[in-house]
Amino acid sequence: MTHYDDLMAFTRDTQALGQVAGRLGWDQETMMPRGAASQRAEEMAAMESMLHARRIDPRVADWLEAIDDTSLDAVGQAQIRHIRRSFERTSKVPAALATRIAKLTSAAQGIWAEARAANDFAAFAPTLAEVIMLKREEGQALAAGGDVYDAMLDDYEPGTTAADLDAMFGAMRPVLSDLRAAVRAAKGPAPLSGTFDEGAQMKLTRTLAKAFGYDMTRGRVDKAVHPFSSGSGLDVRITTRTNAHDPFNCFYSTIHEVGHAAYEQNISDSYLLTPLGNGVSMGVHESQSRIYENQIGRSRAFTGWLYGQMKDAFGDFGVKDEEAFYATVNRVGDGFIRTEADELQYNLHVLMRFDLERALMSGDLLVSELEAAWNARFEADFGYPVDKPSNGVLQDVHWSVGLFGYFPTYSLGNVYAGCLNEAMRTALPDLDTDLAKGDTSPATEWLGVNVQTHGGLYTPREVIRRAAGQEPSEAPLLAYLTEKFSGIYGL
Amino acid sequence: MTHYDDLMAFTRDTQALGQVAGRLGWDQETMMPRGAASQRAEEMAAMESMLHARRIDPRVADWLEAIDDTSLDAVGQAQIRHIRRSFERTSKVPAALATRIAKLTSAAQGIWAEARAANDFAAFAPTLAEVIMLKREEGQALAAGGDVYDAMLDDYEPGTTAADLDAMFGAMRPVLSDLRAAVRAAKGPAPLSGTFDEGAQMKLTRTLAKAFGYDMTRGRVDKAVHPFSSGSGLDVRITTRTNAHDPFNCFYSTIHEVGHAAYEQNISDSYLLTPLGNGVSMGVHESQSRIYENQIGRSRAFTGWLYGQMKDAFGDFGVKDEEAFYATVNRVGDGFIRTEADELQYNLHVLMRFDLERALMSGDLLVSELEAAWNARFEADFGYPVDKPSNGVLQDVHWSVGLFGYFPTYSLGNVYAGCLNEAMRTALPDLDTDLAKGDTSPATEWLGVNVQTHGGLYTPREVIRRAAGQEPSEAPLLAYLTEKFSGIYGL
Repeated sequence: MTHYDDLMAFTRDTQALGQVAGRLGWDQETMMPRGAASQRAEEMAAMESMLHARRIDPRVADWLEAIDDTSLDAVGQAQIRHIRRSFERTSKVPAALATRIAKLTSAAQGIWAEARAANDFAAFAPTLAEVIMLKREEGQALAAGGDVYDAMLDDYEPGTTAADLDAMFGAMRPVLSDLRAAVRAAKGPAPLSGTFDEGAQMKLTRTLAKAFGYDMTRGRVDKAVHPFSSGSGLDVRITTRTNAHDPFNCFYSTIHEVGHAAYEQNISDSYLLTPLGNGVSMGVHESQSRIYENQIGRSRAFTGWLYGQMKDAFGDFGVKDEEAFYATVNRVGDGFIRTEADELQYNLHVLMRFDLERALMSGDLLVSELEAAWNARFEADFGYPVDKPSNGVLQDVHWSVGLFGYFPTYSLGNVYAGCLNEAMRTALPDLDTDLAKGDTSPATEWLGVNVQTHGGLYTPREVIRRAAGQEPSEAPLLAYLTEKFSGIYGL
Repeated sequence: MTHYDDLMAFTRDTQALGQVAGRLGWDQETMMPRGAASQRAEEMAAMESMLHARRIDPRVADWLEAIDDTSLDAVGQAQIRHIRRSFERTSKVPAALATRIAKLTSAAQGIWAEARAANDFAAFAPTLAEVIMLKREEGQALAAGGDVYDAMLDDYEPGTTAADLDAMFGAMRPVLSDLRAAVRAAKGPAPLSGTFDEGAQMKLTRTLAKAFGYDMTRGRVDKAVHPFSSGSGLDVRITTRTNAHDPFNCFYSTIHEVGHAAYEQNISDSYLLTPLGNGVSMGVHESQSRIYENQIGRSRAFTGWLYGQMKDAFGDFGVKDEEAFYATVNRVGDGFIRTEADELQYNLHVLMRFDLERALMSGDLLVSELEAAWNARFEADFGYPVDKPSNGVLQDVHWSVGLFGYFPTYSLGNVYAGCLNEAMRTALPDLDTDLAKGDTSPATEWLGVNVQTHGGLYTPREVIRRAAGQEPSEAPLLAYLTEKFSGIYGL
C-alpha cells in the first residue's frame, strides 16, 4: 500500500459514512416517527462529530504531506485536490466555533419556523444577528485575510468570487426586469384551475421520473414536505409533493429533483465513494436540475407530450390544446415566493438575496434594517409590496441554518443551464422531435456524457466550459428567456 | 467532568452511532433500492469498523481504570459493568480474526441462500466448516481457557451456561415429546382455509399492534420478507409480512415483534442511549415477544376478541365460534420449519439445534455428518422424515452468519415467559376479562413495570427472578403447555 492507497482507503470509508449520514437525513424527512426527533438529533450530532474528527484526522495531514502529487495521474491529482481542500477547510475553523455554529443553527431553524408561522420578523431578528456574527467569525477564519463572503461562497462554488457574480448578475437584472415588465403588460394565459387526484399525480410523476432517465433500481420516489434529492452513487433518492390544485408543482419538483439525482447517478462508476463521486458544486448541480426542469421539461415539444399524459390521467382539465398548455405551464404570474416562481422571475428573487446577504455579512446592512431593505427591494423589482413577512424576509430557511453564499448558486446554475442548453441544441438539432414523443434520452445522455460522468474531476467552471465549448456567460440564458417569453406573450 | 462523565459521554455517542447502524439495517430490509446493495455493504462495513474502533478505544480502558466503581450508585455500577464487558469482549478477539469472520459470514450468507434454493447441503458444507473453524477460534479467544460454547452463549445470554441449559432442556424434552404424541393421537381442529385480503390483514395488524401497546408515534410498521424489530429508545420499528392464505402468520408475527419493540420502548427514559437502554439479553427479549404472542395473544380470552375482529375484517371465514377459533389458532400440525411451528412443538426444534451446534463446536460432530444427524434427530422427535434440505438442515440462516449460541435463547425465552405468565396471572386474576375485550393493558403494563423498564440494570436471570418471584425454571412453562393443549385436544 502506498500513502496514496492508504489515504484513499481512509477517505472511502469517510465517504461511505457521509452517505450514511445523508440517508439518515432522508429518513428524517420521509419515514421517521415524529416522536423520534430528539433521539435523532443526538444520532445526527454523533455522526457529524465523528465525520468532523475524520476530516481533520492527523493521519490525513501526514498522508497529504507524504504524497508527491506529480507522480499521480489526472484522476489521482483531482482526488488529492478535493481531499486537501476539505482537510484545510475543516482545519481552519476552530472546533469550538464549529460546535457553537452547529448548536445555534439547530435552534435557530426552530425559532425561524415559529417566527414565520407568527409572521413576526422581530422574533427571529436577534437569533439571525447571532448566526451572522458566528458565520462572519467562521468566514474570517476561512478567508485568512481575504474576502469573507468569497470564503463562504467557496464552500458551495469553488473558484467563483462575489465579483464574478456581481458582473454576471449586474448584466442580468435589467434584462430580466425589462422582459418581466413587457410580459406583464401583455395578455397572458389563465392559470390552471380545477382539482387533480393526488394518487394520479404520483403515478404520472413516476412516469416523468423514468422519462427523464431516473434509475428506479438505484433510487426511489417518496412524498415529503419539501422536495429534495439525497445520496450519491448507487442509492440516490428523491422526494416530491402533491397539491390537488397544482399538479405542476408535483411534476416539475420531480423533474427538478431527477436532474439532481441523475447527476449523482451518472457519475463514472470508477469514482464511487471517492471525492470525485459527488456533483462538483451547487451551481453545476443546479444547472442539471434546472435544464431538466426548464429547458427540457418546460419546452414546447415536451409539454406537448405532457399535455397528452395529463389528459389521459385527469381527463379534460380545461386547457384546449398543446399550444395553450405550453403557455399555461410557462405562465408568468404574481407571487412572493422564490420556490414557486416561474422561470423568468426566479432569478430576480435570487439576485436580491445575493445583494442583501453580502451587505449583511459585510456589516453594510444591519439585521434591524433587513426587513425594510427586503420589502423595498422586492417592490422595486416586482412592482407590488410584500404583504407579510412569511411572504417576504422570513420565507427561506437558508439564513437560519447559516447558509450564506448559497443563494447565488441557484442563479449561477441557471446561467450554466443556459450555456449547456445552447451547446446541446447545436449538438442535437432534432431534439424536439424526440421530446415531442416524451423521449428525453438524447438530451439526458448528452448531459450525462458531457457533464455528469465527470463528477468532481474538473473544476465547476471547467466542466461547464468543456461541455458548452465556451466560457460560462449569462448571454445564452438571457437570449433563451427573451425568445421563449416573447413567443409565448407575443411581444 | 469526572472520568465517569467522560466515559458516559463517549459511550452515549457510541450508542447513538449503533442506533444509526441499526436503522441502516432496517432500511436495507424495507426501503433500499435493490441496485444499492454493493454500496450499502461498504457503508455497513465502514460503520462496523468505526464502531469496533470505538469499542476498543484506549481511552475507554483509561477511564475504566480510573473509575472507582464503589463510589457509584447501582445504576452507575451497572453502566460500568456493561461497558467493561463490551470492552473486554471486543478486546479479546484479534482485529484480523474479527475482520476474517465478518468477510466470511457476509459471503457465507449468500452461499447458504443459494444452497437452500438448490436443496444442496454439499454446496454449503465447505463454507460452514470454515465458519465453524473461525468461530471456534473466536470462542477460544473469548473463553481464555474456559468452555468455548459457554463463551459464545455469553454473547447472547450473559450468565447462563450450557450446563444450565442442558439440565433445563433435558427436563423439557420428554414432557414435550409425550404431550406432542398425545395431542397428535387426538382429534384436532381443521386448519384455516380460504383467502384473506392482504390490505385488510395489514389494517388489522396495525390494530393489533396498538392493542398490545405499541407506540406508533415512536415506531412504524412496514412489510418485509422476514418480520423483525429494530432500534431502541424513541425509534423502534417493526416489520411483518402477509400471506393471503395465512393471516395468522401476519398477526402473530406482528404481536411477536411488538413484544420485542415494547421492551425497547418501555425501558426507563433515563437510560436512553446508554448501555442500560437496551434489552438485557436475547432470552429476556424473547420472553417478551413470546408472552405477548402466546400466553396473551393465543389465550382463549384474547382469541375470542380476535375472532370478532376477523369476522369484521373478512366476513364469515368458515370457523363457527370463538371456541373453534381458539382451537384453530392453536392447532398442532405437521411441519418442518421452526419459524412456522406452533407453541407446543417449537421448543423441540430449538432443542435439537442446541445439541447439534454444541457438537459441531466441540468437534464431536463433523460438518460432513451434520445432515444425517439432523435428519435422524428430526425423525426421532417428530415422527416423520425430512423431505428436503431446505426443510431441514438448510432452513435457518443462523449458522451461516456465525450465530452459534443463539438458538437456545429462543427456548430460554419461552421458559422465562412461562415463569412471568405464572406470576402475572397471580397478580392479575381478572386479566381474562380485559383480554376478552381486546384490552391487553393490564398485562403489558405489568410486564412494563416488572421487566421492561429495567433495561440492562439487572442480570438476565435477576430480572426474571425479581419479576417472577422465583428462580427461573421450566416447570411453569411445561404446566402451562400441558394444561392448554390438554384442554384444546380433550386429553
